[in-house]
Amino acid sequence: MELLEKAKAGNKPSIARLISIVEEGTPESAAVLREIYLETGGARLIGVTGPPGSGKSTLTDKLVKACRNKGKTVGVIAVDPTSPFTGGAILGDRIRMSGIALDEGVFIRSMGTRGSLGGVSKATHNAIKVLDYAGFDYIFIETVGVGQSEIDIVKTADSVIVVSVPGLGDDVQASKAGILEIGDIFVVNKSDRDGAERVVIELAQMLDLNPNKDIGWKPPIIKTVASRGDGVDELNDKVNEHYDYLLESDEITERRKIRLANEVMEVLMKHAETYVHSRLEEEEFTSKKLDKILSRELNPYDVVDEILEKTFK
Amino acid sequence: MELLEKAKAGNKPSIARLISIVEEGTPESAAVLREIYLETGGARLIGVTGPPGSGKSTLTDKLVKACRNKGKTVGVIAVDPTSPFTGGAILGDRIRMSGIALDEGVFIRSMGTRGSLGGVSKATHNAIKVLDYAGFDYIFIETVGVGQSEIDIVKTADSVIVVSVPGLGDDVQASKAGILEIGDIFVVNKSDRDGAERVVIELAQMLDLNPNKDIGWKPPIIKTVASRGDGVDELNDKVNEHYDYLLESDEITERRKIRLANEVMEVLMKHAETYVHSRLEEEEFTSKKLDKILSRELNPYDVVDEILEKTFK
Repeated sequence: MELLEKAKAGNKPSIARLISIVEEGTPESAAVLREIYLETGGARLIGVTGPPGSGKSTLTDKLVKACRNKGKTVGVIAVDPTSPFTGGAILGDRIRMSGIALDEGVFIRSMGTRGSLGGVSKATHNAIKVLDYAGFDYIFIETVGVGQSEIDIVKTADSVIVVSVPGLGDDVQASKAGILEIGDIFVVNKSDRDGAERVVIELAQMLDLNPNKDIGWKPPIIKTVASRGDGVDELNDKVNEHYDYLLESDEITERRKIRLANEVMEVLMKHAETYVHSRLEEEEFTSKKLDKILSRELNPYDVVDEILEKTFK
Repeated sequence: MELLEKAKAGNKPSIARLISIVEEGTPESAAVLREIYLETGGARLIGVTGPPGSGKSTLTDKLVKACRNKGKTVGVIAVDPTSPFTGGAILGDRIRMSGIALDEGVFIRSMGTRGSLGGVSKATHNAIKVLDYAGFDYIFIETVGVGQSEIDIVKTADSVIVVSVPGLGDDVQASKAGILEIGDIFVVNKSDRDGAERVVIELAQMLDLNPNKDIGWKPPIIKTVASRGDGVDELNDKVNEHYDYLLESDEITERRKIRLANEVMEVLMKHAETYVHSRLEEEEFTSKKLDKILSRELNPYDVVDEILEKTFK
């Protein structure tokens, strides 16, 4: 396939086209994924997650530049909230990352968060495969770290950077807990603001509650002011240190195994969903039976049993 | 079952115990759900969602009090971020809602957001069924409206209240887009703050983009200062107006049908997941095959085909 060859040679329009294909999940998409899989596995995957307004885009921007300074090529996938009415990713192709958007060695892609559960996750994993196949040395995945699906997307990256920020109120401190256990490196960004030290202390206290805290990698907490570049060198050093740790401990194999298992499970469940859906249609589930369940003439649990019986071997 | 009788009679410890049972998804849980289903459907379901720090708890508190003043009983399910290390919901049983927590006619429950995709949603729907069965007139579901899974939980409530707040930065304005289409009533809380008018205007503009805006219910935008009670009466009026609209247009049947279909689909997919998992175990998928896929000797898409072939009729 000419498109694959061009993408492999680094042709950006071809890479963009390939990502669009694998996003859609068409039969063509399955063929592409099958063909490229055996030539993936070379890229280093870095997840960046944090609440809205924490400055993760700026931080990613700086980290990408650091990679570029070492002559590495970089792909960036930004999982953005999506407009319900336009269907497109609101933030577009990250116009804010203007510093790197025109760089030949950088490819930036926005992914919308709309669609069914697991949909974004699958689309993101597939896009990562295309970038991996296209030969990018580093792939950054940036998500809003609040919802479970967003967390699931980054949690199996080789290194996960969790970004916090002072002054977002109590609720946010609680939300952060959901992403505590997935962080390899914690960043308190906008650390020139009031309350930064308190966020550092709270994070340290929460990490200290982890019963496994003395085993393996100890997640550092780094203060940055990404807009000024403060602390970015230190963060970059820690990212590299973490990668060395992954290689030495061979934890990288374990992580990639988990990531792979999750992906296979996703593909399987997507297929399972299709099977179940078509079975529901055959049963005229959407109209007649649903009415009877609503009027409490039928019990939905009996209906479920019936469908399962007919669907699985 | 004595527990069911007690819960039906409004005994709070029994209700709490029943919710714990249906949360766990055990065989006992299935039996309970099957038994209570035919006696549910009487409660009015109101979803409240908004970003962390928007004051949705305070707002819910005030709405609950308004229901109580009319002599109605109220159940509240707060879907809270969960601590990764303790496993429990950080905010506990909503100590902040102290104004209503001791009221005999109010039952409050926190649900954690941890676990697999779809897990929270299923647990929440099951808890709603228990409260419905126990005879509460109103059930409020409160979630952080950022992640897709949180949105999926509230979007099929009879009425959905989307809470915004000034001053959370650009990112949040974008995030809000993801929940725009599910809102029946929009609230700009903390409207005494700078920028409140801008949030109202932005919301109005975004709603105006909806191609279906002239069909059916037109979502109002209401300014509140929940902590002082400002605007709460107006909000309450709108909630009742929306309910009247649902009844008159019979849209309530349509909504409940969609909710039911989603729930049945969730139950089916949960079962499908169990089938696929056990199939993976039989295939020793987690060890041997995964290694071969990682080393690129095997293509995961071939493995998926093989498993699907063996799983579905």
